Amino acid sequence: MTALRRRVRQLHVAGDARWLTDELSAEEPLEIRLDGVPLTVTMRTPGADFDLAAGFLVTEGIIGSADDIRAMRRCPHAADADSEFNVLEVRLVGAGTAVVGQRNFFMTSSCGVCGKASIDAVRTRSRHDVCDDPLVVSPALLATLPDTLRAAQQVFARTGGLHAAALFDAGGTLLCVREDVGRHNAFDKVIGWAATQRRLPLRSHIILASGRASFELTQKALMAGIPLLAAVSAPSSLAVQLAEESGMTLVGFLRGERMNVYTGQQRVATAVATGGGTAAG
Amino acid sequence: MTALRRRVRQLHVAGDARWLTDELSAEEPLEIRLDGVPLTVTMRTPGADFDLAAGFLVTEGIIGSADDIRAMRRCPHAADADSEFNVLEVRLVGAGTAVVGQRNFFMTSSCGVCGKASIDAVRTRSRHDVCDDPLVVSPALLATLPDTLRAAQQVFARTGGLHAAALFDAGGTLLCVREDVGRHNAFDKVIGWAATQRRLPLRSHIILASGRASFELTQKALMAGIPLLAAVSAPSSLAVQLAEESGMTLVGFLRGERMNVYTGQQRVATAVATGGGTAAG
Repeated sequence: MTALRRRVRQLHVAGDARWLTDELSAEEPLEIRLDGVPLTVTMRTPGADFDLAAGFLVTEGIIGSADDIRAMRRCPHAADADSEFNVLEVRLVGAGTAVVGQRNFFMTSSCGVCGKASIDAVRTRSRHDVCDDPLVVSPALLATLPDTLRAAQQVFARTGGLHAAALFDAGGTLLCVREDVGRHNAFDKVIGWAATQRRLPLRSHIILASGRASFELTQKALMAGIPLLAAVSAPSSLAVQLAEESGMTLVGFLRGERMNVYTGQQRVATAVATGGGTAAG
Repeated sequence: MTALRRRVRQLHVAGDARWLTDELSAEEPLEIRLDGVPLTVTMRTPGADFDLAAGFLVTEGIIGSADDIRAMRRCPHAADADSEFNVLEVRLVGAGTAVVGQRNFFMTSSCGVCGKASIDAVRTRSRHDVCDDPLVVSPALLATLPDTLRAAQQVFARTGGLHAAALFDAGGTLLCVREDVGRHNAFDKVIGWAATQRRLPLRSHIILASGRASFELTQKALMAGIPLLAAVSAPSSLAVQLAEESGMTLVGFLRGERMNVYTGQQRVATAVATGGGTAAG
């Protein structure tokens, strides 16, 4: 249910026109409730909703692992049961809601920097330190990741409208790939999958974003203990700043056989690892 | 201040490596306060902050026009004055905050569907009806818009990391273009510019998105009274649904000489406007 078919009119400036069937990326609201209290509404691509909820709770620092979740279920009595609106109820072990009571969380299709009214709270403190993570990978391994991701993507080729996130181990083996209209949801789905698999923290793992690397994606990777974030497109200034301060490796413009390493260069071993390139630091 | 220079290590799988200077898209938090009360925090590209705030207030339905704004200023006494955190204070004419008190707003780098805890509130009711807007444009005119936008973009070519929004009149003349790390901010900046220019509602105007068309972008266009939303990439299912229900024309995959018209076909006149194409509706 991640793509919907629709008749669409295709026009050409030369004047020809035809009807064709297009596949649209599905986008629907999901409300996550925590111990009965509405926590957030996200516009997401349906699918892997439990992973999404678990990942959101992890990357927002509400829980540290799936052990903190007592139960998750779809709410059968949601006020808008007739609509496409979906509600997911999460029950925590212990007093998780006490933490939540201190701030409101709202998530959207592309961001996790929500519900926080000051800059002090924009940065979520991670339970995991990636600074000393011993991961080292070759440029050649990194260069294979986008192709692996594209091969695994199920919807993008048809709709052209989905972001993807993929989790790899240190050997470049694909562990999990998730797609969503929101890149931030795709990250939460992957991290939530890892949480429910009891794999957190994701030491010596790599997470790949199909698009750009923003501050919030960097923060989500950090919350899951991932030492290397790679993106097919550009990073933002704040993504680079956060990666640098956290000791995370940030790779951007990972395309074809080239890539830019913005921070944490020690984790990407070149053939001329010592003394290569021009002198600059 | 929309791009920051940084030394970055470029690697090639063949083994060569070099240092080069990359330009990063600037991303910084902006807090918007309304009559002294924190309203929202957005991760945005600095620049056109007043337009961004005005546009956000319009597209969230808090104000109808710039006449509702008494004053806007940067807060000189923000708690984090030393940091990159920016605070913008907006004072409204009348009791604007009474409306705001009913819900919390949080905005992010890519979304306007925030601070609303149920689907009923996800849809903001527009003051403007685009249903009967008489705009009709040719495919040839639409096909020129992406090139016009690209020519006007100042940062994208250097950083590869910015979304853009552009406002055109019915003749295809570019009126305003804004860039941001968040596509939703780019829309708010354009609409806020129009608001401060006393141009709302934007009857018979066209807004172009450099990427995908989501639900929230469609809603923002609707809130400004824009009858035609065009996007270079794919629309989501909910974007199409909202456009259809609102009588808005939604064009996607506007690339080269082709485009897909998802809704409101009557506003795009083909050379064979009557009787063209195969029979389907």
